[in-house]
Amino acid sequence: MNFKRNHFIGLKDKTGDEILQVLEIADTMKFLLAKENKKSPHLAGRNVVMLFYEKSSRSRLSFELAAQYLGANIVDLLTTLELTDNESLIDMGGVIDQMGGDYIIFKHPCSGSAKLLAENTRAGVISAGDGVNENPSQSLIELLTIKKEKGGFGGLKVTIVGDVAHSRVAKSNIWGLLTLGAEVRVAAPPTLVPAGIEGYGVSVMYDVAEAVNGADVILCVRLKSEVQLENSMMPLNEYKNFFLIDAKTLRYAKKDAIVMHPGPINKGVEISSEVISGRQCLVDDQIANGIAVRMAMLYILSLKGDTSGWI
Amino acid sequence: MNFKRNHFIGLKDKTGDEILQVLEIADTMKFLLAKENKKSPHLAGRNVVMLFYEKSSRSRLSFELAAQYLGANIVDLLTTLELTDNESLIDMGGVIDQMGGDYIIFKHPCSGSAKLLAENTRAGVISAGDGVNENPSQSLIELLTIKKEKGGFGGLKVTIVGDVAHSRVAKSNIWGLLTLGAEVRVAAPPTLVPAGIEGYGVSVMYDVAEAVNGADVILCVRLKSEVQLENSMMPLNEYKNFFLIDAKTLRYAKKDAIVMHPGPINKGVEISSEVISGRQCLVDDQIANGIAVRMAMLYILSLKGDTSGWI
Amino acid sequence: MNFKRNHFIGLKDKTGDEILQVLEIADTMKFLLAKENKKSPHLAGRNVVMLFYEKSSRSRLSFELAAQYLGANIVDLLTTLELTDNESLIDMGGVIDQMGGDYIIFKHPCSGSAKLLAENTRAGVISAGDGVNENPSQSLIELLTIKKEKGGFGGLKVTIVGDVAHSRVAKSNIWGLLTLGAEVRVAAPPTLVPAGIEGYGVSVMYDVAEAVNGADVILCVRLKSEVQLENSMMPLNEYKNFFLIDAKTLRYAKKDAIVMHPGPINKGVEISSEVISGRQCLVDDQIANGIAVRMAMLYILSLKGDTSGWI
Repeated sequence: MNFKRNHFIGLKDKTGDEILQVLEIADTMKFLLAKENKKSPHLAGRNVVMLFYEKSSRSRLSFELAAQYLGANIVDLLTTLELTDNESLIDMGGVIDQMGGDYIIFKHPCSGSAKLLAENTRAGVISAGDGVNENPSQSLIELLTIKKEKGGFGGLKVTIVGDVAHSRVAKSNIWGLLTLGAEVRVAAPPTLVPAGIEGYGVSVMYDVAEAVNGADVILCVRLKSEVQLENSMMPLNEYKNFFLIDAKTLRYAKKDAIVMHPGPINKGVEISSEVISGRQCLVDDQIANGIAVRMAMLYILSLKGDTSGWI
Repeated sequence: MNFKRNHFIGLKDKTGDEILQVLEIADTMKFLLAKENKKSPHLAGRNVVMLFYEKSSRSRLSFELAAQYLGANIVDLLTTLELTDNESLIDMGGVIDQMGGDYIIFKHPCSGSAKLLAENTRAGVISAGDGVNENPSQSLIELLTIKKEKGGFGGLKVTIVGDVAHSRVAKSNIWGLLTLGAEVRVAAPPTLVPAGIEGYGVSVMYDVAEAVNGADVILCVRLKSEVQLENSMMPLNEYKNFFLIDAKTLRYAKKDAIVMHPGPINKGVEISSEVISGRQCLVDDQIANGIAVRMAMLYILSLKGDTSGWI
Repeated sequence: MNFKRNHFIGLKDKTGDEILQVLEIADTMKFLLAKENKKSPHLAGRNVVMLFYEKSSRSRLSFELAAQYLGANIVDLLTTLELTDNESLIDMGGVIDQMGGDYIIFKHPCSGSAKLLAENTRAGVISAGDGVNENPSQSLIELLTIKKEKGGFGGLKVTIVGDVAHSRVAKSNIWGLLTLGAEVRVAAPPTLVPAGIEGYGVSVMYDVAEAVNGADVILCVRLKSEVQLENSMMPLNEYKNFFLIDAKTLRYAKKDAIVMHPGPINKGVEISSEVISGRQCLVDDQIANGIAVRMAMLYILSLKGDTSGWI
């Protein structure tokens, strides 16, 4: 197939074939990663600009290593950005273009900002998360981990547990999983479920045992903060009483069900320590898949001529 | 000609030949930049230390890309510097020398600090701006843009509009343009004109129409901040009423006059949106020339033996 | 000999042979550093992760240059780390492992944190200082400088002057010097001497003239801050009256005694300006040895198979 996209902003408008192709390329990147000298020349002389308006240690480490493995130059604008320095996002896109930036890894607190930047720059934009919208790279990691473990997505029962309203990964997962033919259920306090989500074919349940019942995959969502939670009228203690994934909850799922979390985990609140260290929890696989997925995303954008539109 | 300089601190004491030589080398760097793989080995194994005591996104991005294109190592001291950690600028220069730093890209809030550092380190210092003194790289960008458009400088009428007193680029432009034979006029509120500037042969005018009359080139200067402006007894609204470059003002200049601004622009205050998007405004060319100029500066300093004194 | 260590956490449990071997390799690294193109491929395709929970300009510059000279990839997590983002040190070690990080350069305000990280990651940990525990790289620099100047350590009289209680370098120096057969004396106000240190064979003296008497080497320790000093019931003025190393104090030492300081120096408080600029003060040699020692440490950890345990 041809890659018709210049950007990775989200999974909402992707076809199943497009998503599967990224997963396939990510899988081949793991061969490169297994070598002691992990350098390849695929992006030699190309420029990756890190443009993070939000802090992030994991995803930044992962993207920077991915870019370095592929031989790219990296410039990190993270620490010099001042939102008050009168430089609009649209102007910043133009500046990066004029300076020869090829790819922008972008993270921003406003929903829609990744699309706005992508529409105003020739550089390829990879969203590492915008507002409460999407986080395609983190979602592709979870999809790759599912595919490696379960073989495919058709008919798979996937339960997403936690603060779906504020989670970008959860949004991307919902769009990706529905497109790929999985059955998606959401378990969360009513205040943490996005309005109108059932209209897209997602089942919403407020009882975690019911939501997990017969599930193949349980995707936990990170609670942003205690404060955010309490603004949603659900104190932390209450959340954990109702939505913690522990050995007892897990018994409702299929015997070979897998549990994922984008990390870092609030241990004992989102997932119990027992489940985290058990064989069903694949958080280590997720982190390891993270670099392969991000290498694949950069590599796909570098296939010029064949690309026109991963917005 | 020989390059007799070890540092790029300013344009004040440069000869016209020296300035033109940098512009010529910058122009050849654009061939390198046009290639997909922009890496060249001119500075392989050399060390560029970023030493920024002031924040800056555009100039830092530009210098870091320039250094990477030339194959240099880069170490960014920006984020680790604590002015309180008892490390004087002179000691810092010595430390960088002892560690094998070859070039220092330097930005500092005190006028004269770049010269002080240059006098106390063996590494080549490129000033990215010191206090209200000079900013040679930004000025060389504007000179290169003028030269590409107008062919040369002799007899050229150049009007500098805005806060010349606090602007480093404006200072460097004045020294460079006078040396190269241009006629320089300054248009600004009286409180934003440096004292005694007329003694150097610059005409000072308080009426923008008069200052722009018959001009070949209009160089706008960035207003640092509203606060700074109001300290100078000129509220923002007043400034824009008197000094905004819009279509009406532009009509006083020559028909083929060009408008420049180091960016980011305060739209509607320094230049009108209409003029910014018009064909006479060359801000995009400036940004694109930025990397070429900075590559040329690094390259010239690397020509050891032929260099002895761009202070 | 074989390198049996995976980590550089401290010198406390090292044998003399192990320490001397590092110094020998560091010495050979100086040949690489003398070349104009300082790049070597020893760590090509390996990943160095900078994980600094404390600010530091000198040691970070030194480690980053060392890693770049050896051809490694570098990712700097310094600026993105938020201690509040719920990522424990143990989890961070796991994340770096999963992402293919090979070496972690680590600095942290808690004593013992380097060992904790080393026990919870497969990556090789090099401590750049943890709490009031050790700083092996800075100490190895001082040991290398002593060895180059004095030939060896047996019977050498070494006086450590200053805030030994809070100094990590002083701790590493004490362990290293005792192991290598030197005689170690400490001169400091009683409140700045670690309790029980005499049990390890260190002589403690409160009179600097007595402590320096007949010394071959004087190692000054950096006072952390005026506040810290005053908490120790020793105002800055008092400290300098009793413990400043000036020409007068130096006369008590051997004629060819050398003076060192890890920098930056509080001039006129720890060492007088006269002594600093004199031929006995080797602070410049120390800085220059800094990169060679850090290259050696990284190189030794890269000798896989032969390494198993520099903790």
